[in-house]
Amino acid sequence: MKANRTKEKLLQVGVSQASVNGISGITIGSLASESGISKSGLFAHFGSKEQLQIDLLNESALIGQRHVVEPATQAAKGLPRLKKLVNLWFGWWQRAELGGGCRVAAALFELDDIDNEVAVHARAMEKQWQALLSQLVYEAIEVKHLAADTDIDQFVWELCGIYLAHHVSSRFSRDKKADARAKRAFDALVERNRPA
Amino acid sequence: MKANRTKEKLLQVGVSQASVNGISGITIGSLASESGISKSGLFAHFGSKEQLQIDLLNESALIGQRHVVEPATQAAKGLPRLKKLVNLWFGWWQRAELGGGCRVAAALFELDDIDNEVAVHARAMEKQWQALLSQLVYEAIEVKHLAADTDIDQFVWELCGIYLAHHVSSRFSRDKKADARAKRAFDALVERNRPA
Repeated sequence: MKANRTKEKLLQVGVSQASVNGISGITIGSLASESGISKSGLFAHFGSKEQLQIDLLNESALIGQRHVVEPATQAAKGLPRLKKLVNLWFGWWQRAELGGGCRVAAALFELDDIDNEVAVHARAMEKQWQALLSQLVYEAIEVKHLAADTDIDQFVWELCGIYLAHHVSSRFSRDKKADARAKRAFDALVERNRPA
Repeated sequence: MKANRTKEKLLQVGVSQASVNGISGITIGSLASESGISKSGLFAHFGSKEQLQIDLLNESALIGQRHVVEPATQAAKGLPRLKKLVNLWFGWWQRAELGGGCRVAAALFELDDIDNEVAVHARAMEKQWQALLSQLVYEAIEVKHLAADTDIDQFVWELCGIYLAHHVSSRFSRDKKADARAKRAFDALVERNRPA
């Protein structure tokens, strides 16, 4: 039990650190100096820098699951559920008090030239997330909130672009209109795919 | 002259390195070991790590200017010019043989929690780029290729989202359909803003 609590604590510290500095910047050494636990103690918990980075990506995903996915699935199937997920997804890092931005989004740029096990894991996570979005779009087609000929992959692709633009404009550019712009872009995407 | 040529060479090496590893990963030390020039020699050229990173962002922008902006302005004013710019912009890092992705795009995620002079400079560059895009959208309105009530800021915001989605899907996710998806998204954005 005690070992598990220590590991949980370390993951919390690591996720905050990664949220500000990026996943690639996290090493056993940097987490050791941040947490006050010895490097050898950290090796006992994580084994390697790569495993630590993978555990931190998974921990971020779990936080996202609690803040975004679980509450969204309470909404009615179709557009209400998809809209609720989008509302909770955009800006989730702020509500989760991560201290920095969405590290999965940043990892998409950080790890694009890297082929190690961390990048492979991040790619699989990204695919899983797209599969969830696709499922919600599919459900919205099923209940006829979206047109039967909606191109699900294209819809998800464009939705991810709106998320990235929102992340950049709200965090990097500090644009106060970021939420309103994202909403307009998402509404236009839905409108384009409404049943005739 | 010789000092200028050495600096040019160093900027080339640095831009390739940054294209793969990110701007924040570039230090006087990393460029010294890559280029074979001593740290003190590098300090004479750049003065500080921050100035080196700013010079590398500027050098990336100059390469973009040559590969994207200059050829695009040859096209006719209005949608032809805007479309040509978009075609040259998306995937420009590949045609410029940078060895990695667009570092300005990556910097939007790398530097979002940082407030040093490099981040301030990157923010100004991003604003300049948006101003150029806004100018081309404005010209397309002037020649009635786009509707008079087109919200220029919203148009540019969404266009930047399509660029980011294209960057991620072509580089990180290695999706062969990235170009086609970006084209469809951009065409839909134009269609939505056509004159009635």
